[in-house]
Order: sequence, then C-alpha cells, then structure tokens
Amino acid sequence: MIVGLSSKIINRLTLYHNILVDYVDKGVENISSPQIASLLKIDDSQVRKDIKFLNNAGVCKIGYCVADLKKSIEKALGFKKKKKAFIAGAGNLGFALAKYTNFAVYGFEILALFDNDPLKIDLSVNGKKVFHISKLPELKKNLKLDIAILTVPRKFAQETVKLITTSGIKYIWNFTPCVLDTPSDIKILNENLVGKFIQFTINPNMV
Amino acid sequence: MIVGLSSKIINRLTLYHNILVDYVDKGVENISSPQIASLLKIDDSQVRKDIKFLNNAGVCKIGYCVADLKKSIEKALGFKKKKKAFIAGAGNLGFALAKYTNFAVYGFEILALFDNDPLKIDLSVNGKKVFHISKLPELKKNLKLDIAILTVPRKFAQETVKLITTSGIKYIWNFTPCVLDTPSDIKILNENLVGKFIQFTINPNMV
Repeated sequence: MIVGLSSKIINRLTLYHNILVDYVDKGVENISSPQIASLLKIDDSQVRKDIKFLNNAGVCKIGYCVADLKKSIEKALGFKKKKKAFIAGAGNLGFALAKYTNFAVYGFEILALFDNDPLKIDLSVNGKKVFHISKLPELKKNLKLDIAILTVPRKFAQETVKLITTSGIKYIWNFTPCVLDTPSDIKILNENLVGKFIQFTINPNMV
Repeated sequence: MIVGLSSKIINRLTLYHNILVDYVDKGVENISSPQIASLLKIDDSQVRKDIKFLNNAGVCKIGYCVADLKKSIEKALGFKKKKKAFIAGAGNLGFALAKYTNFAVYGFEILALFDNDPLKIDLSVNGKKVFHISKLPELKKNLKLDIAILTVPRKFAQETVKLITTSGIKYIWNFTPCVLDTPSDIKILNENLVGKFIQFTINPNMV
C-alpha cells in the first residue's frame, strides 16, 4: 500500500480501476492514457502523472498493459487488506449496499445487517442475514467486525451510534444526514451525498 | 450563491448546515465554533475561517445565531435554486434515494423514476411514480427535468446513459461503478462510493 497519496489521487486511481475492470471484462489487453483521460474528461498529462506514482506500472509500447496496471492500483490502494463491515439499518439503502457486489473487489466484506424492526430480523439479502441490533456486541466479537455502515433513519442515528461505539467499533461510515456526536477515538466518514452534489452543481468540472 | 468556493469548503458548509438543522429541531438558538468543530473533529479556527467566507454571518455575543447562520449557508450554496431530477433504475438504491427527504432541503426535487421492468412500472415511492424508460424524452420535456441520477445495474449503465443523453439531459449523477462514455458536453459526477471509503481507510482524518 502506498502511504501519503492525496484524496484526489486515490479518487482518480479508483476510477481508473473501474475502467480497467471493464476492459478486462471486454478482453482488451492495452489502454492508453488518452483513452482513460477522455472517458474521465480530464487531462491526459494528469493520468500519466498519477500512474507515475505507481512507478509507471504496466507501461508497454502501446500504452499500458490493462492487467498489470489494474494489479498495481490494487496493490497501491491495499485492496487485499480485508475490511470487515456490517450495516446498521436494513432499509432500502442498507439493502442496496448489501447487494452492491463491487465492494468485494476492494477487499470490503459486508458480513451482516442489523435492525430493530422484528419484521426484518432473519431476512437475508445477498447471503447476508439481518440480526436484531441487540446481537451486535456478540457478533462484533465472533465475526471480528470493525466497520459500521450507518443507514438508519435520521431520528435513530445518534442512539444507534451509541450502541455501535460501546460495542467497540472504531470506524463508522455515516450515510445519515446527521453529524454524530462520538468519542474522540472514533473515526467517522460522513458520506454527505447531497453536499457532494451541491459541489457538482456549483462546479461541474470536478472529478 | 458564492462562486469560487473550493470543494472542501462546500463540503464543510453542508456539514455545518446538517448540524444547524438539528439545532433548529431541538430549539437551540446559538452555537459556538468550538461546538461545531468538536462534532466534526476538526479545528475550531477552520470553522471560524469558513464562516468568515459567509461575511461572518450570524455572529453574536455567544457564538453564532443558529437561524441566521443556517440561512447564510443556504444562500451561499444556492439551496433556493431548484434542481429537477429523476432516477434511472428503480431498484433498492433508486428507492432509497427517492425516499431521502433531505434532498428537498437543498432545492433538489426528484420528480420521477424510470425502469425497463414491467413489474415496476406505475409503482409509487414517496409520491414519485415509476415510468417506463421509453417515456423519458416526453417527461423530460413536460417536467423540465435536467438531472439524471443513475442507479441501474452495471450491465445496463452504458445503454441507459445513451438514452439519457439523447433525450437532452446534460447532468448525470452516476451511482454505478462504471466510468461512462458520453459526449463532451455532458457533465458527470461519478459517485464512486468505494473510492471514498478507500480514502477513509488510508487516511481516516479527512472531513
């Protein structure tokens, strides 16, 4: 894993990876920096600069070797490092994320869902079972869960986070529109979907 | 609307806004920069600096006036400017986004969903109807839609985008893990959920 990459480079590398996955699917063996740049509507020189960070991985006579470049990005971004997660909130968004098979590509395993609605307990989605939220401390230990994905309704967000942090989870990926009050050692990624979209409407040329 | 704000400031302002919405709900009238900073685990001076961009909006003796600061952020980020959108792909994620009432706060109206599955046509979610994708050109015109939210499965992404762009839509918010091939005048926001999470696992102190 390459330490010290900026957020913007990491974002672009994962987008290049998306393109490479698609090229592998299609059986295409080589790709050029202008091809990548044109798909992302960014500058060709930016793509070459980013790939230089990977020690010019996959360079060949006609651009880059798709398989090698893909592997280098996976190594640089630590895709092989397993990240064990669960979803708190088995609603539409929780189910959508549980079904999102692309997470596995990134070493990201969703092992269970939790909810407090009796009608949802024991449902299964994409091979992942819904448990009552009271089972969290026990399953956290048994399944070695370390990341919470929070998709509960706004009004349950703060109390659910309290349960999550007292069960020993340190990483929370927050999809609710709430800013959560947590102990200082808890790391939170506020997904802030609308915020990102507002940025886009103000400045649509960002990648 | 304040032009030229960086992505990072816009992101933080929308997070401050989330906090202020919560304080309004709770009937709290004033908030201090250390309170905001502590909730977001960022530096107090950063919060003050951001608010200075809003011409020190809402400053009062005991911090900021919640209602005034909230209004200033809404003005700076153009929340009153209506953005008319539709969802292409009436699956779990499409339904989750259609139910996300918080969008309206930002002037963001989702007016319809589209799908090609006959079983989904005429379903309703949160007052929004699912139409067959073939109705898009007609409804684009009648409802004055200008933003597409793409939540179709990976394999349908490229063909759906072709339909969307030929119907005259210029803004696409792409939730699929595909990098889409589009004409140069189309603006795409690649949501890239996993990319953002990878950034978080590498550098958990970002906001």
